[in-house]
Amino acid sequence: MATAPSVSNSMTIRLEVPAGGSAVSQLTTAVESSGGSVIGLDVTASGHERLRIDVTIAASSVAHGEEIVAKLRDIEGIAIGKVSDRTFLMHLGGKIEMASKHPIRNRDDLSMIYTPGVARVCTQIAANPEDARRLTIKRNSVAVVTDGSAVLGLGNIGPKAALPVMEGKAALFKRFAGIDAWPLCLDTQDTDAIVEIVKAVAPGFAGINLEDISAPRCFEIEARLREALDIPVFHDDQHGTAIVVLAALTNALRVVGKDIGDVRVVMSGAGAAGTAILKLLLAAGVKHAVVADIHGVVHSGRADLVDADPDSPLCWIAHHTNPEGLTGTLKQAVVGADVFVGVSAPDVLGAEDVAAMADGAIVFALANPEPEVDPAIARRTAAVVATGRSDFPNQINNVLVFPGVFRGLLDAQARTVNEGMMLAAARALADVVLEDELNANYVIPSVFNDKVAGAVAGAVRDAARAEGEVVTTATATP
Amino acid sequence: MATAPSVSNSMTIRLEVPAGGSAVSQLTTAVESSGGSVIGLDVTASGHERLRIDVTIAASSVAHGEEIVAKLRDIEGIAIGKVSDRTFLMHLGGKIEMASKHPIRNRDDLSMIYTPGVARVCTQIAANPEDARRLTIKRNSVAVVTDGSAVLGLGNIGPKAALPVMEGKAALFKRFAGIDAWPLCLDTQDTDAIVEIVKAVAPGFAGINLEDISAPRCFEIEARLREALDIPVFHDDQHGTAIVVLAALTNALRVVGKDIGDVRVVMSGAGAAGTAILKLLLAAGVKHAVVADIHGVVHSGRADLVDADPDSPLCWIAHHTNPEGLTGTLKQAVVGADVFVGVSAPDVLGAEDVAAMADGAIVFALANPEPEVDPAIARRTAAVVATGRSDFPNQINNVLVFPGVFRGLLDAQARTVNEGMMLAAARALADVVLEDELNANYVIPSVFNDKVAGAVAGAVRDAARAEGEVVTTATATP
Repeated sequence: MATAPSVSNSMTIRLEVPAGGSAVSQLTTAVESSGGSVIGLDVTASGHERLRIDVTIAASSVAHGEEIVAKLRDIEGIAIGKVSDRTFLMHLGGKIEMASKHPIRNRDDLSMIYTPGVARVCTQIAANPEDARRLTIKRNSVAVVTDGSAVLGLGNIGPKAALPVMEGKAALFKRFAGIDAWPLCLDTQDTDAIVEIVKAVAPGFAGINLEDISAPRCFEIEARLREALDIPVFHDDQHGTAIVVLAALTNALRVVGKDIGDVRVVMSGAGAAGTAILKLLLAAGVKHAVVADIHGVVHSGRADLVDADPDSPLCWIAHHTNPEGLTGTLKQAVVGADVFVGVSAPDVLGAEDVAAMADGAIVFALANPEPEVDPAIARRTAAVVATGRSDFPNQINNVLVFPGVFRGLLDAQARTVNEGMMLAAARALADVVLEDELNANYVIPSVFNDKVAGAVAGAVRDAARAEGEVVTTATATP
Repeated sequence: MATAPSVSNSMTIRLEVPAGGSAVSQLTTAVESSGGSVIGLDVTASGHERLRIDVTIAASSVAHGEEIVAKLRDIEGIAIGKVSDRTFLMHLGGKIEMASKHPIRNRDDLSMIYTPGVARVCTQIAANPEDARRLTIKRNSVAVVTDGSAVLGLGNIGPKAALPVMEGKAALFKRFAGIDAWPLCLDTQDTDAIVEIVKAVAPGFAGINLEDISAPRCFEIEARLREALDIPVFHDDQHGTAIVVLAALTNALRVVGKDIGDVRVVMSGAGAAGTAILKLLLAAGVKHAVVADIHGVVHSGRADLVDADPDSPLCWIAHHTNPEGLTGTLKQAVVGADVFVGVSAPDVLGAEDVAAMADGAIVFALANPEPEVDPAIARRTAAVVATGRSDFPNQINNVLVFPGVFRGLLDAQARTVNEGMMLAAARALADVVLEDELNANYVIPSVFNDKVAGAVAGAVRDAARAEGEVVTTATATP
């Protein structure tokens, strides 16, 4: 599958060309004939003889960008100067910062923000610890915690290399939900240590967003932290993904006119995201689910599961899915299936597999950047197709969920997050797509749809309050 | 010692008075005759019959403020409404926030700040971990870490109650040095746990500021972290205080015309601050130091030290001070002393003790808010007096030091912080006071002197570079 030029692979090239002649049009032609696109062209200095130009181009990859620059060098009279990678420029010095809400102009300001005035606020919180939710950043803060063990599709790249993702996440928390998040990239991948560290830092935060922690450790870490803490703990890779999938599936089923309790769902992938999606789909009413992993369809009699720990995630799946006792391969399982959800690896299905699904088939091929099946091919026979990519319709993107979920949890002063709140979030997200708007290419709203975060937040807040999973109101201010 | 009215104890009182008559002048009189002061008076609504007024007053304490409000209630025709504590108002929802440096307006922005573009930056850092200092917030971030065990003069109030101080500290880091600091208030007071937690969170920060951790745990925590980490670890209560004291002492000695190698220094207090001050004064050339704690003068033969662990902080003091082998009480030790430095408790010295010091005596009475000796009384016979209070000349305030020290460390990409850098910081801070400006009431610059942070930062940066305690330059951007 060829990748289109993207600003995420864009660069700004400073160059000089002769003032007269065709050099400028030649360079535009050279970029476009090489498969790149010119995003911008600024003349930064001009004289009778020479022009200095900053030309910004988008390429399909870094190597492609280098090829384009090499082509430009061949144009007669051109002199190539500094080549700047725009994505790297945006990262210099980091993407987020800490800001003070109040000016500190003079002694009076200092005496209220810091000593001696601050001592009275400390004393108040010491007497009523829950007042930290009124009088400190705890009220609006989320820790974005990772150990760098499963970052994007890059794998175990460690805490420092994970930091750009966590900063980006913090920026998105602010942009879409006004939340103050700070990244904590941990230099340990020991489950016990991570649990102890997160427990210890919890006093300063109203929520914990676990991020890019590999399975199966992520399950235990999350479960132990939920048990230990009085603030919500949410592993976005699991539950954020699950909520978007359920929302998109809800609308896709509306498009094809099927009921969630009747459809047969086949999933590829039994990792963190797959397990969470399965659990939420079951909670939402799916009755016929089959999961396949790299060893084929999961069933209780499978060789690797006969003697496995009955509390293991895979045994849980074996006991809660596959009521017909299917065995065999993923490709065998999808025959006649109504829904395919892939969170696994590229190209596990072909055109013939999608064609073998039931009429009105729904295909969510979420492996990124290369989906389980080419979405253009899947669309030939499937009624609804979604991917994790931004260059196809129906992008399954966690940005649709985590800002609103945490906004709702923080507004409710929630003590925890549970399945009821997640179901409410998925329902609210699905309902952002109005009946008039719904069609096979629009089962999920855009990330920049400004109704999304508020709708999700309201649903989560109300669900948390309805379940009573919130902190009792703090005392009045003196 | 009576305390003057302060904005740190200020409140805004909403009240209604008859439009005619003398109620307004009566209320001003009532506030001032009660010892408060009127900071502001805003008429927020006016009619023929009644005025609604927001009057802001400063009191000496919370109780004093309540007395003033009670006095106001006695004025005929007045109706008191909501009374708002201004310091608490400033703390509502916290004092700091997280901000994104770049707007996220559209898909293009998202694709560079977050996926897919961010993956290339992660890959770069995975290949060259030191690039985290160029391409992430690590470059400019400091963790402000406390366990809430020794907060201000309030003692062991725990992590949530410590948060307002740590937020204030973060705000000051930004205000005075452009540093992005984030508070981590830990829900453990176990030395091993704190060391492990700080080690684990270190990848995302370029420095660790330990804060308000009680002695003797603070010594071990700092020492173990310095050993383990490749970023500087600085316990501000110790070293920030020590640097300001040394700077002020340097200038005070200029005022009285004495040399640091000749003076006899008597200290009261052997806690975290006292020990750090002592060590830095010895490093700066003090030869005759005597330390007293609650049990009197520290000497090797003292009953509680004979069988003590020779590695204990108190034994260290016994072996490095008191060359004359003095015994007895603090009051006995100060007779004839040139310098007194108190970091202990209120009122341990009287007028007669200061009078018994040598001519040109220097008294730093830093216990806060109640000094070791009333500074007004000390000033009768001492040549130079400094305190920790903002309402006397010569305030010893760590805000003069920690922003600049960390700015210098971060600018140098320092791996550690050591005595040489601290001595450089003290020298630079002392030198901000010009020869023309120097006198007994101005041995240390004001917190708002805008030369301070830059001078301290430059000195620390140069010292770190000169000692080679810096990270090798990161690789070039692709």
